[in-house]
Amino acid sequence: MMKLFYAPHTCSLASHIALENAGAEYTTVRIDLADDEQRKPQYLAINPKGRVPALATADGILTETPAILAFIAQSFPLARLAPLDQPFAFSQVQSFNSYLCATLHVAHAHRMRGYRWADDAAAIEAMQRKVPDSVASCYDLIEHNMLRGPWVMGETYTICDPYLFTMAQWLEQDGVDPFRFSKVIEHRSRMSERPEVRKAIAEQLA
Amino acid sequence: MMKLFYAPHTCSLASHIALENAGAEYTTVRIDLADDEQRKPQYLAINPKGRVPALATADGILTETPAILAFIAQSFPLARLAPLDQPFAFSQVQSFNSYLCATLHVAHAHRMRGYRWADDAAAIEAMQRKVPDSVASCYDLIEHNMLRGPWVMGETYTICDPYLFTMAQWLEQDGVDPFRFSKVIEHRSRMSERPEVRKAIAEQLA
Repeated sequence: MMKLFYAPHTCSLASHIALENAGAEYTTVRIDLADDEQRKPQYLAINPKGRVPALATADGILTETPAILAFIAQSFPLARLAPLDQPFAFSQVQSFNSYLCATLHVAHAHRMRGYRWADDAAAIEAMQRKVPDSVASCYDLIEHNMLRGPWVMGETYTICDPYLFTMAQWLEQDGVDPFRFSKVIEHRSRMSERPEVRKAIAEQLA
Repeated sequence: MMKLFYAPHTCSLASHIALENAGAEYTTVRIDLADDEQRKPQYLAINPKGRVPALATADGILTETPAILAFIAQSFPLARLAPLDQPFAFSQVQSFNSYLCATLHVAHAHRMRGYRWADDAAAIEAMQRKVPDSVASCYDLIEHNMLRGPWVMGETYTICDPYLFTMAQWLEQDGVDPFRFSKVIEHRSRMSERPEVRKAIAEQLA
């Protein structure tokens, strides 16, 4: 049985929802970021990056959200969470998720994790000031060039949807005006009504 | 025929090498970053992100290096550039490439592209000062936890190899002591001897 290592309010929610979408049998382990549990030897033995999520599978540990999501889609093909047999369409799914991981999530991370990229306090504050702008730029692209609707890839729900939904939880805290991005907000509402999403959130916040 | 939009000294080299590895028929278009060509309307119509690489395929445009690499592997299965029929092994390939894209490349980008994440000059300089440290931390993980040798995934060459090789071009300029990372440096040398790698580099620098 798979085991998801997660922390509330992080991108691990995306993998959690996808496991629910897939109908997977899995357990979860909460990592206490407030206690720096992700940097303690016990967790570093699972994920030497010291981050969540990590997914323990029968074959080993997997990290990085885009890879975990693709693994879930491939492991549960009957759930049809990605166009597995169409290389171009599958790569578009990967491309969207890669953008969230490497650009949107990174822009967001400059609000709380600026210490990763600079040591002095003034620089870290300067990074925080730019977050509303840099995150909004990402949502401009998502709103106008990427999100087809009703789901990210159009008529069919894919592993892009829980990932975008997870990122969109942070819009207001990142200082972005949600009214600028109606398609993103409608997508967030649509997702929040799904029972699998509610179940994953309830478990993470319990 | 596929068309790769690239710029020298960027991560587009990885996709270029992979196209050579695949034996693909393709053409290339050089984008002049010094002239800000990537932000001009003609290129934004191809890639609204204003970045390289972009791969024009028969089905449409694809962006994001991990997605392009996976697409090349899937489109040319006989080249065996990824373990396509093994979900866990394939996800490990994706996980490695996702780490390069979202963590290593991002750490590196704070040297030349700090303006993405802060507006004031002092903050941008503070980011530059941390690059040797943040990039070296990534290579610590790659050297000790990820790179199996002789290739990234072990005995078999995959789409992880051109990507790591491309990133490793920047080690010295990022202020990282290459002697700390013998496996990475050996990998870089091993890659640089391959004719497809030489051909892609020669074309990019021509």
